[in-house]
Amino acid sequence: MRIVEGASFIAAPLCGLTFVQLGADVIRFDPIGGGPDYNRWPLARGGASMYWEGLNKGKRSIAIDLSRDEGRELAVAIATAGGEDAGYFVTNYPLKSFLSYENLSAKRPDLIAVRVTGSSDGRNALDYTVNCATGYPFMTGSPDAPDPVNHVMPVWDVAAGLLAAVSLLAADRERRQSGKGREIVLPLSDVAFATLANLGHVAEVTTTGKDRPRLGNATYGTFGRDFVTRDGKRIMIVGFTRRQWTGLITALELQADIAKLEASLGVNFTSDEGARFNQRDALFAMIAARIGSYDFQPLTKRLDAAHAGWGLYQTVKEALDNDPRLSPANPVFQMQTHPGGETYLTAGYPGTSSTEKREPVAIAPKLGQHTDAVLTDVLGLSAAKIGELHDKGLVQGAK
Amino acid sequence: MRIVEGASFIAAPLCGLTFVQLGADVIRFDPIGGGPDYNRWPLARGGASMYWEGLNKGKRSIAIDLSRDEGRELAVAIATAGGEDAGYFVTNYPLKSFLSYENLSAKRPDLIAVRVTGSSDGRNALDYTVNCATGYPFMTGSPDAPDPVNHVMPVWDVAAGLLAAVSLLAADRERRQSGKGREIVLPLSDVAFATLANLGHVAEVTTTGKDRPRLGNATYGTFGRDFVTRDGKRIMIVGFTRRQWTGLITALELQADIAKLEASLGVNFTSDEGARFNQRDALFAMIAARIGSYDFQPLTKRLDAAHAGWGLYQTVKEALDNDPRLSPANPVFQMQTHPGGETYLTAGYPGTSSTEKREPVAIAPKLGQHTDAVLTDVLGLSAAKIGELHDKGLVQGAK
Repeated sequence: MRIVEGASFIAAPLCGLTFVQLGADVIRFDPIGGGPDYNRWPLARGGASMYWEGLNKGKRSIAIDLSRDEGRELAVAIATAGGEDAGYFVTNYPLKSFLSYENLSAKRPDLIAVRVTGSSDGRNALDYTVNCATGYPFMTGSPDAPDPVNHVMPVWDVAAGLLAAVSLLAADRERRQSGKGREIVLPLSDVAFATLANLGHVAEVTTTGKDRPRLGNATYGTFGRDFVTRDGKRIMIVGFTRRQWTGLITALELQADIAKLEASLGVNFTSDEGARFNQRDALFAMIAARIGSYDFQPLTKRLDAAHAGWGLYQTVKEALDNDPRLSPANPVFQMQTHPGGETYLTAGYPGTSSTEKREPVAIAPKLGQHTDAVLTDVLGLSAAKIGELHDKGLVQGAK
Repeated sequence: MRIVEGASFIAAPLCGLTFVQLGADVIRFDPIGGGPDYNRWPLARGGASMYWEGLNKGKRSIAIDLSRDEGRELAVAIATAGGEDAGYFVTNYPLKSFLSYENLSAKRPDLIAVRVTGSSDGRNALDYTVNCATGYPFMTGSPDAPDPVNHVMPVWDVAAGLLAAVSLLAADRERRQSGKGREIVLPLSDVAFATLANLGHVAEVTTTGKDRPRLGNATYGTFGRDFVTRDGKRIMIVGFTRRQWTGLITALELQADIAKLEASLGVNFTSDEGARFNQRDALFAMIAARIGSYDFQPLTKRLDAAHAGWGLYQTVKEALDNDPRLSPANPVFQMQTHPGGETYLTAGYPGTSSTEKREPVAIAPKLGQHTDAVLTDVLGLSAAKIGELHDKGLVQGAK
């Protein structure tokens, strides 16, 4: 399966990366010198973008002068080339551009194109200028914080990139029956607002007439918060399910105190997770005191024995230093040296198949590393023609 | 295409919902009385979970007594029934359970099962107890905040649910050629750590030896932050691309001030987005003063004319009251009355296809609403046999 990607930043490149990890040949074209994401931080000590490296692992790279018609035609030819295992294009180019579906499908009517756009109203938008409109920054952070708090994880980009992959595969399944292509347009704003609605936020505000207040690190509607152990470790504890809740209370030997509180309030915390939320001040105080009386090691041993739900707060550095789940001991990850010269732990596909052995985790190409190979394999151009394209400055190889 | 879902909470149900929206017949089985997510907040005024409604729209629901062997066998039979357009199972049941792949594939060797689990080390985990381990809470919030800040959006659940859909479709593509089934296991922790690595965080910490500091609402490595207009509106502004940056400076008529700053610092903000980040204190001060001198309407008119990147901060209520993108004017959304009795804006698939008309947005079933229909359609049971299952209390219809 061959996917062609003409894209930048996170969403559409993550779609391409997902296909790499599923075994596809993914060809990414970029302008000569790189697109707008080619120098995005973090940078390697030699200056290369490790952000670009992370999102473009295992892709073949061709660099084309996209400012000239002849270069644009090359890009269109690559996107539309090939047989029934090709004709898949992933992009974040605008609806109206030389890479419009109209232009592409004129060359190949059965093309499947997936286009991640910004705002559904046609305005340009990035994750950050969509997220501010979702209400999440007003739900994030301490109840005392005066201003909205942006989360750092670009969630709408990631969700849009993965939905792009879903959309492409679903359209492919249909094309195999009908022979017909299509374009699927995925605005970040529709991804964000639809997710907000799917998770009940729209229903909640419609029903109550009010926005959900900030809860700090507490979870909404059930039991969950961060707590600190006697030796100063911070852990997140959840009691969403009956088993997690009773496990927690058992591990902390709080059965009698909880029974007393339940009797005084006339509630049953085990059967009613809403009561765990409504009475959270009393529960948090009781549980914080108990957690603060244990050191981390004996506490978490007790929690695990009782099947309570908890996780340790750690920075990325702490995770890298201490957590086997983010280490070469986890088959999802391998140490790799990347074109920028740095060696670091590199991720493969997060899903593990019962039938397939993991391939080595691929590294990113150099920009233009596969320019000649792509022109040969995909377009069938002769060495002479390829030389001519280089002479005209229409394509470039790796430096 | 028929997908069977035996799942709770967000990730696996979101996978099922995605298939509903792509036109599949999705059958969800639940224990009689509902699973651990059946009462999750927010609740309708009549008590029904609107969270459950949001994630289970358009599914067919069968309620089975899963505590008894005979009920468990029914669930296994439903998950493994059908022809080549069936045999797809999505779950968050543990690896070892009556719904293990071993048990299921014994009945149907070509079954494709996608299983979202908690932690890759076998411990139970939810989004919240994974997220604390990723480092994001230490990057989120004000630089002055003493403690980590959880984000509210359950990103790992959403990413895992969408990756589950990708994994299923990719395995299906392969099964059509080989005839072979498989299980794909997707731990939330692998989804989280792999994403962290794909986005460059692991490379950054490895290269610098240090964790990324908190930046409040500023973006890392380029230009972006929230600003407040003269009339008190808060907007997020990004200058990631050359066009966004020059658009912003043009709209604000800051060309001369920026040129002076560039000369004094010996940098070029247009060509070097890293300089926009390194010199952010000076830039933020200059731009905040200018933004604060405009009212929202004239300011955003200027920004749009210059193709600058911006978005308005709004709460969910403000979005529902004012934003056409989250309204019935957007074809992704429709007003629907749900089984819990509430009427609210309901989302369809966020992707819009060039070839297909949108179907009406489906509503959630009542628990057990399709019990008899599923037993008939999927298992081919007679009315007498179905009556017997009801009499034994092994299945239940909707109340």
